[in-house]
Amino acid sequence: MDDTHSAPIDLATIVAGIYEEMKPRLGEGKVADYIPQLARVDPAQFGLAVVTIDGTVHSAGDAAVPFSIQSISKAFTLTLALGKHGESIWRRVGREPSGSAFNSIVQLEAEQGKPRNPFINAGAIAITDLILAGHTPKELIGEILRFLRYLANDDEIVIDRDVAQSEAATGFRNVALANFMRSFGKLDHPAEHVLGVYFHQCAIAMNCIQLARAGLFLANGGTSPLTGHSVVSRQRAKRINALMLTCGHYDGSGDFAYHVGLPGKSGVGGGILAVAPGKASIAVWSPGLNQNGNSLLGSLALEKLASRTGWSVFAG
Amino acid sequence: MDDTHSAPIDLATIVAGIYEEMKPRLGEGKVADYIPQLARVDPAQFGLAVVTIDGTVHSAGDAAVPFSIQSISKAFTLTLALGKHGESIWRRVGREPSGSAFNSIVQLEAEQGKPRNPFINAGAIAITDLILAGHTPKELIGEILRFLRYLANDDEIVIDRDVAQSEAATGFRNVALANFMRSFGKLDHPAEHVLGVYFHQCAIAMNCIQLARAGLFLANGGTSPLTGHSVVSRQRAKRINALMLTCGHYDGSGDFAYHVGLPGKSGVGGGILAVAPGKASIAVWSPGLNQNGNSLLGSLALEKLASRTGWSVFAG
Amino acid sequence: MDDTHSAPIDLATIVAGIYEEMKPRLGEGKVADYIPQLARVDPAQFGLAVVTIDGTVHSAGDAAVPFSIQSISKAFTLTLALGKHGESIWRRVGREPSGSAFNSIVQLEAEQGKPRNPFINAGAIAITDLILAGHTPKELIGEILRFLRYLANDDEIVIDRDVAQSEAATGFRNVALANFMRSFGKLDHPAEHVLGVYFHQCAIAMNCIQLARAGLFLANGGTSPLTGHSVVSRQRAKRINALMLTCGHYDGSGDFAYHVGLPGKSGVGGGILAVAPGKASIAVWSPGLNQNGNSLLGSLALEKLASRTGWSVFAG
Amino acid sequence: MDDTHSAPIDLATIVAGIYEEMKPRLGEGKVADYIPQLARVDPAQFGLAVVTIDGTVHSAGDAAVPFSIQSISKAFTLTLALGKHGESIWRRVGREPSGSAFNSIVQLEAEQGKPRNPFINAGAIAITDLILAGHTPKELIGEILRFLRYLANDDEIVIDRDVAQSEAATGFRNVALANFMRSFGKLDHPAEHVLGVYFHQCAIAMNCIQLARAGLFLANGGTSPLTGHSVVSRQRAKRINALMLTCGHYDGSGDFAYHVGLPGKSGVGGGILAVAPGKASIAVWSPGLNQNGNSLLGSLALEKLASRTGWSVFAG
Repeated sequence: MDDTHSAPIDLATIVAGIYEEMKPRLGEGKVADYIPQLARVDPAQFGLAVVTIDGTVHSAGDAAVPFSIQSISKAFTLTLALGKHGESIWRRVGREPSGSAFNSIVQLEAEQGKPRNPFINAGAIAITDLILAGHTPKELIGEILRFLRYLANDDEIVIDRDVAQSEAATGFRNVALANFMRSFGKLDHPAEHVLGVYFHQCAIAMNCIQLARAGLFLANGGTSPLTGHSVVSRQRAKRINALMLTCGHYDGSGDFAYHVGLPGKSGVGGGILAVAPGKASIAVWSPGLNQNGNSLLGSLALEKLASRTGWSVFAG
Repeated sequence: MDDTHSAPIDLATIVAGIYEEMKPRLGEGKVADYIPQLARVDPAQFGLAVVTIDGTVHSAGDAAVPFSIQSISKAFTLTLALGKHGESIWRRVGREPSGSAFNSIVQLEAEQGKPRNPFINAGAIAITDLILAGHTPKELIGEILRFLRYLANDDEIVIDRDVAQSEAATGFRNVALANFMRSFGKLDHPAEHVLGVYFHQCAIAMNCIQLARAGLFLANGGTSPLTGHSVVSRQRAKRINALMLTCGHYDGSGDFAYHVGLPGKSGVGGGILAVAPGKASIAVWSPGLNQNGNSLLGSLALEKLASRTGWSVFAG
Repeated sequence: MDDTHSAPIDLATIVAGIYEEMKPRLGEGKVADYIPQLARVDPAQFGLAVVTIDGTVHSAGDAAVPFSIQSISKAFTLTLALGKHGESIWRRVGREPSGSAFNSIVQLEAEQGKPRNPFINAGAIAITDLILAGHTPKELIGEILRFLRYLANDDEIVIDRDVAQSEAATGFRNVALANFMRSFGKLDHPAEHVLGVYFHQCAIAMNCIQLARAGLFLANGGTSPLTGHSVVSRQRAKRINALMLTCGHYDGSGDFAYHVGLPGKSGVGGGILAVAPGKASIAVWSPGLNQNGNSLLGSLALEKLASRTGWSVFAG
Repeated sequence: MDDTHSAPIDLATIVAGIYEEMKPRLGEGKVADYIPQLARVDPAQFGLAVVTIDGTVHSAGDAAVPFSIQSISKAFTLTLALGKHGESIWRRVGREPSGSAFNSIVQLEAEQGKPRNPFINAGAIAITDLILAGHTPKELIGEILRFLRYLANDDEIVIDRDVAQSEAATGFRNVALANFMRSFGKLDHPAEHVLGVYFHQCAIAMNCIQLARAGLFLANGGTSPLTGHSVVSRQRAKRINALMLTCGHYDGSGDFAYHVGLPGKSGVGGGILAVAPGKASIAVWSPGLNQNGNSLLGSLALEKLASRTGWSVFAG
């Protein structure tokens, strides 16, 4: 019985039930094929993990299978950038939905090299450029990886070097975006350095349980219940959630808000991190994508989850 | 003490306090001047009304002074359209933030006359066209007015005919938008008829208390606590809230979500309707606008209110 | 043997030969169908008239069948506007190719209501607005018609009222363009008045012989050899020719210059006026259009004519 | 006495006279400053060379001072590409004016990586990519240089290595354009290779006399009167001239046609090559640029020259 939440929520049943409903549809959608490492992933996979703010984990399906987090990394590098540079980062990148595809260059020209938001590719590259200050690319790659291990409280998280190298070899559009920003004086470091980091952050491999744990601070006012450490302030956690809701799914952000109603960030690897403020952090993964480049079954599962839990931020 | 909400909320004190803080800044911002009727409004006014879902009203300042609701009417005509035509309206209008100004025509050309969302002018005109089916313009104007009176439970609400006529006499951009959509076959009625209604719905005059009461169903799962009537389903209320959050403030929607964190809809008359799901409906009004065309002091007041009440939908 | 011109040109043979070559292809292309009056024109027609600057006429095919000159009228209203207002008209309209379709509105928004050139619809509407100063629409319609009769030295030329009325009833895109310019303060008269003239100028009906005669002043340094009257200065004739070459065929102007190499102006009725400076004025008509909205057989015939006569302005 | 050409033309007097008229204005305009090597050129220079198709040279001012030909090289690489690949090159690059700045990337996105014409940067890069087939970059650089020496019949022409290296070090926008095209599969070779050639072709240094001689084949039906060799067919010479007229001056092409009326190609080094078909090849150079990035005094000198000689292709 959807759309009601007066009864106590049985998360275990809900998570298991969603997995059962997804099973017959495994393999739907189109797997990202721009690099061989993503193209050869078995599409018939689906994982779901819900970590409530008391640390309880509910998971189902392929929740322990690692996948390439791709653009989900943008939420974490944004967090790092806000920590290092505070609100000054908004001189380099905007906070508005883009109204165009994730890799569009048109907006960049109209706005003189300033990307619309930190979650389109150009914006994420600009963010990585900002946190590269004072580091070598190698050092920064290490720092980002350590940050994710710290957030997830799990040292097993690694970078898939094959994915990183393959992206570097074929990422012409991102090379174009970085050089375009540089031509406007909006990139401080050589494009190769910034992209060296960017391609590695996208190639971090995590499973749903790790990812949901890593995002838990956003559901808990900035503090990770896993470690008790404050990652960001309460205000900043709210703001990152706001950005994920308005901009987290490229040109499908409005649709995701309409159907799911949770802040989230998706990646072309098929993963989505979603946040139910005050309630839980959720990670879902299924490689087949919808027309906006977001996980087809992942989006659907989150819609069901939000409906059955009443966790939509828009519910009265 | 901002950004905490463990203590019980003293709304009366918060509302009064915000008004006191705004007082010294009365008159800031730029009053809309495209029609004389708006240009001659005294800028040094500020009203705030908060109606909680138990029906309690807290207000301050000029909360009983009527103003032109302008684009806030788009939230109510959308509600009507969803009621009449259901999800089929999305064939005519999208659900994504526009990434451009409220009256831009560029996106319309790229997307063959289908507006990005119901809250930019083109989208609202398309929505009005949809609900015009089977009506004369005069009948529909009456229906919209009655709907607002019903929602606010207040028969004193009227249309400012001078504002409507003035908009009709100078609204060349809207005439262009409507005819442009018509050229793509995306408008069923003559542009003059649709705009006749549109200019009148924008010219409805309400005060903050009336407006907050009219929006209360969105904070209460679709049912108005004032009358007990179900206006829309729980799911639909969520969805309208989602659209207001991602698209409610034109090209400043991301910024509003970042700073305020509540679904809202603004108008160039200086009013903003905001919804705290499960908590309250809020209306604020102050004529001076910021660079995005949203009320400067109104936005600021809502940021303070959301922070002090902890009502941001993004708070953990 | 194309592309040589050392031998004396036998125009009669060339004109007759081109007609013979076109005959088997009569009916190719797509007739404009946005108004019934154009849609019902028999596509299997082709007319060609060449009037040399000594006044000699060579014609073939349906050269005496009147057709709707449509956008070809833009060359004549530009001539009128330059005569009335001189180079000051360039404050209202640019002189650069548009890089987009004839009825695009995107460029207008980027350039604040100033059309790119006088030969796209928005630009022609702006030109008509300029020459409307001091006239009623009816008077101006009369003046334009008299100007064409004077140029062609033929009082039989008339306006097809059915075409004009039909365009007025369906020309939503042009209504949008005019109102859009008005919203930027770039139109002095009510859109209805300007468009009233515009739709009538487009509805002027001429045959190839009349049209070629009307354009002869452009081939003869500004003076009509038919009447001996100076229509425009030698410099102005050159400049109108230049504009026709760079902008006369919408987004197919570059292609027309590449293949034909003559200044020209096309219309969706299937007519094209071309000018061989110092040599001749040429009119061709065939209703089937190519993908750029220019007469398919007409363009082809002009390419053959330019090649066989060596009249391309780019020939050494 | 401008705009008449019935009297025999005294070219020597015209050329000398134009130089005298330009002298008081030496230094006007803004020298390109994106690389130090261009920025430090003395702006108070002006050279003019006219080579008639009988080989006679008239020159004045700094006509023997070498300058960086920059984008003028695009006319010559286009000639090479047409020679090697014929009309098949138009699958990779369009023939229409761009309606936007020389280095705009917006059009590239809308048209899936296919540049509008061979004379904007993206188009020239695409052309260089085409002629790179079967060559190393070094070989192709050599071939282009030899081609210009051959056309000018002058082995003194060299490449300015400092300019080439400086462009390579700062040409982020061109790197962006090349990678953007590559991301659409519209570049066959690595961007570094193509740009390696491109930056060198732009860095070729020539003086006005050399440049006018090199372009003479375009004025003479494809055959160089200097050597008697046929460089391209008569038809192809016409077509290259047509492209120079419609697209040769970026977003100022329409204006150049309006005022000068000759096919031409400009470069940010301040040079312009112009062609008077059947008459002469003209090179002018003055480093100060107008707002469209074309030589200010150079454009003015060509307007005077075209007017006094009656060489405008649009003159009757």
